[in-house]
Amino acid sequence: MSVALAVDVGTQSVKAAVLGHDGLAPIATAPLAVSAPARGAVEQDPRWFTDALAVAVPAALDLAGVAGRDVARISVSSQLDAVVLHDRDGRTFGPALIWMDRRAVREAQAFARAADPDRVFERTGLNVDASHAAPKVMWLRAHRPDDMRAASFVGSLASFLTAWLTGEVVHDLAQASSTLLMDVRTGSWDTGLAELAGLELERLPGIRPADTAAGTLRAPVAEVLGLTTRCEVLAGTGDDHASHLGGGGMAPGAVVDVVGTAEPVGARVEGAILDPDRLLETHRHAIRDQYLVQHPGFASGGAIRWLAGLLGVGQARVLELCEQSPPGARGVRFVPSLSGALVPRWNPEVDAVFAGLSFATGPADLARAVVEGVCFALRDVVDRMRELGVGHHVRVVGGGSRSRGWLAMKSAVLDAPLAVARVPDAAVVGAAMLAGMAGGEFGSVEEASDRLVGVVEHAVEPDPALVACYRDAHADYRRLFESAEAYGTPRRGERA
Amino acid sequence: MSVALAVDVGTQSVKAAVLGHDGLAPIATAPLAVSAPARGAVEQDPRWFTDALAVAVPAALDLAGVAGRDVARISVSSQLDAVVLHDRDGRTFGPALIWMDRRAVREAQAFARAADPDRVFERTGLNVDASHAAPKVMWLRAHRPDDMRAASFVGSLASFLTAWLTGEVVHDLAQASSTLLMDVRTGSWDTGLAELAGLELERLPGIRPADTAAGTLRAPVAEVLGLTTRCEVLAGTGDDHASHLGGGGMAPGAVVDVVGTAEPVGARVEGAILDPDRLLETHRHAIRDQYLVQHPGFASGGAIRWLAGLLGVGQARVLELCEQSPPGARGVRFVPSLSGALVPRWNPEVDAVFAGLSFATGPADLARAVVEGVCFALRDVVDRMRELGVGHHVRVVGGGSRSRGWLAMKSAVLDAPLAVARVPDAAVVGAAMLAGMAGGEFGSVEEASDRLVGVVEHAVEPDPALVACYRDAHADYRRLFESAEAYGTPRRGERA
Repeated sequence: MSVALAVDVGTQSVKAAVLGHDGLAPIATAPLAVSAPARGAVEQDPRWFTDALAVAVPAALDLAGVAGRDVARISVSSQLDAVVLHDRDGRTFGPALIWMDRRAVREAQAFARAADPDRVFERTGLNVDASHAAPKVMWLRAHRPDDMRAASFVGSLASFLTAWLTGEVVHDLAQASSTLLMDVRTGSWDTGLAELAGLELERLPGIRPADTAAGTLRAPVAEVLGLTTRCEVLAGTGDDHASHLGGGGMAPGAVVDVVGTAEPVGARVEGAILDPDRLLETHRHAIRDQYLVQHPGFASGGAIRWLAGLLGVGQARVLELCEQSPPGARGVRFVPSLSGALVPRWNPEVDAVFAGLSFATGPADLARAVVEGVCFALRDVVDRMRELGVGHHVRVVGGGSRSRGWLAMKSAVLDAPLAVARVPDAAVVGAAMLAGMAGGEFGSVEEASDRLVGVVEHAVEPDPALVACYRDAHADYRRLFESAEAYGTPRRGERA
Repeated sequence: MSVALAVDVGTQSVKAAVLGHDGLAPIATAPLAVSAPARGAVEQDPRWFTDALAVAVPAALDLAGVAGRDVARISVSSQLDAVVLHDRDGRTFGPALIWMDRRAVREAQAFARAADPDRVFERTGLNVDASHAAPKVMWLRAHRPDDMRAASFVGSLASFLTAWLTGEVVHDLAQASSTLLMDVRTGSWDTGLAELAGLELERLPGIRPADTAAGTLRAPVAEVLGLTTRCEVLAGTGDDHASHLGGGGMAPGAVVDVVGTAEPVGARVEGAILDPDRLLETHRHAIRDQYLVQHPGFASGGAIRWLAGLLGVGQARVLELCEQSPPGARGVRFVPSLSGALVPRWNPEVDAVFAGLSFATGPADLARAVVEGVCFALRDVVDRMRELGVGHHVRVVGGGSRSRGWLAMKSAVLDAPLAVARVPDAAVVGAAMLAGMAGGEFGSVEEASDRLVGVVEHAVEPDPALVACYRDAHADYRRLFESAEAYGTPRRGERA
């Protein structure tokens, strides 16, 4: 009896679960460290991921009561936008610069000067932003020249993992489409853009559809994971794409809101639909010939964790504190641009702000203002999706979908009912869908959705009194954003 | 051997000390509660003050080893801007609305509409602001009509204390000059302004010079305090005025910076000099024919206490945390308008703001930003004093003068050396000066200063590297204030 393994390599943890004939077994989790050595710098040692895999995979087998020899296939979803310098066998050179790393702001500006951002957006579907791979590669060349020279490949976390697992250096179209180096329509590396970033095409990973095999497990890795060298490894996909699939994103009109450290929000479309306002980006999806129009996510759970750290309490306590402040947080407002603004406009020079503070402001008001601010940011994203006509029904997944209070605020701010996923770990579900499709268990992505995606429709309905309150508060939040943007932009020099 | 008692009735505590032939004995303190029952509402029960006097006065006698029968005279300094409804014997009607109470914002607006604010400023030296007595009286008439009708006097904390102590309902020119009801030049109640506030002149306290006797102790009070009915009670003065005297404010060019919950800053002048920009107000001083040009104080120690409450730490910890963040607080800025702005402009619609927040922001950065923000507010006040030519050498007194780190920041922000008082409780020193002058121990205020005021000149010198950093940061702070003001002002409706 052969089974598959679905794995999600995230920021805070690696999660793994067995996909058997009865569906998805319980999920095993291994935590990950995150290093923030300087303002804007956010790194992870690639070894932390492989060490965590060596914990989570055997634990998942245990939880399912399955032997390693019965695992025919692994499907891995992983963080987008991480740059990892590596070799064919998974040797690495320096830490991964992960999606949160903002050090390449100047390089992004240089890239934008050299290549017209409108043209780049039209070609890649992406904004020229420090989060994407191309500016990070430029930063690495300037600041880590030895590592850049030594590594055979300038890859992603996905290509590093595939190399470590199989010896093949590939990742999927979805991963490649978040690099600023791929033509989103052709699905091939763009020679001109690679040249701008100073990269030879042969140092970039191969691009494969997500559900095709990259190779089979290398012997030493099979041993570490408790699997066999017969086990096939898929090209895998990005965590946003896997979460979108696992959250039921294939349903017509669905918008999947993935509430984690960041809060990416996406809608599936058939062609390369581009947002003329460039608030939303367009990726290739993990499903062939499908695209994902998405916002890559504003500080969300990350903002709550940040506030928890300031207040010296746990994250759960921040969500409890919210309930002790009235709707509108007694006039306190928060703009969650904790690593620059990505909504309602992309502007790396905008910092986060708490406004409306008074002697009457207590921790509960700050907590509520943070969660409300995150909901207002979501509303701006969802409004744009609706305007573009790419999606309208919001389905909430991720750890943040477990808080009733947060869901109630979100529903009122959006003035819409929300569907909520039964299993919050949607990326694992999405990875499992790809594994089942590759193995022939599911004949189509629709069948995979039917079998694995569990969503409670109308799990939350908007409270009319809250809707009215938040309509005004959202307008006020937007005024505060304008104010923060006007204040922030001329400060470029000081912070650089 | 007769001695005098100097008492300061503040917000956080009542302090008392014996003035004997050897100078001032150690200070006894009794804490006070403060009640903030709603946004903008800050009250104290008048009984809390008399109860605290009954603790602090006997304790001061103990500390000095003096018998109550030897106390010939009491000099009391007390909070400005508190409104107390009371009778001739000290019976009260409702709580004191203290200086921090901001509920009378609408009444201040109504007063300003009825009386041209320019004319009022020219007449009284004051801004039409909710902190002053006239709007508070209007608020009490609307919201506490029974108390307003029942009380014989619409007084100050000083007039209540004098009534309770002696049965005479008086306070001094300094107290009266912060009500919006007194002509600052003539030192008499202004009939027109009293009429605007709906007050009959006979319900206002009598006005006496600070160092004249109001009366002698009533028998029941003498017993409670452990004194005799022969003990004379001076008219007393405002705490800002007493602190200014006790901080050495009579020295030519001195600016006394009183660092408490708020941070009033004043300079003595000979005539009724008025600030054309109305940032500074002009009072009668506690010394005959002298005036005090002063800023009534922005949130200072109060802002630190507020942040300590948010972070769940003690106030001292906030000052320690400051040292763990570099100058400029990693780009975090704080505008300390926690009860509306009083500097660089008076605007009750401006709230406090934290800007420049990022994932790298920790509690130490918030702490440093708060203390820096308070220093920037001080700089705007001192700059105005210098422009007006009313003072330039800054002398720091009050609890906040004990922090070396805060003094170093302040000195760098002001780009000036600072003198620091040996005894931080300058209001007690000032009250003692008045007692000694009334009793003939000191022939003049200059002699009183020479005998009682201890100031270490050049206690702190500005660090040139910090000066340069803070010059830019102050300009940035001012930009943030403009931004907070533009954001705050149209929100009037929402918060009312």
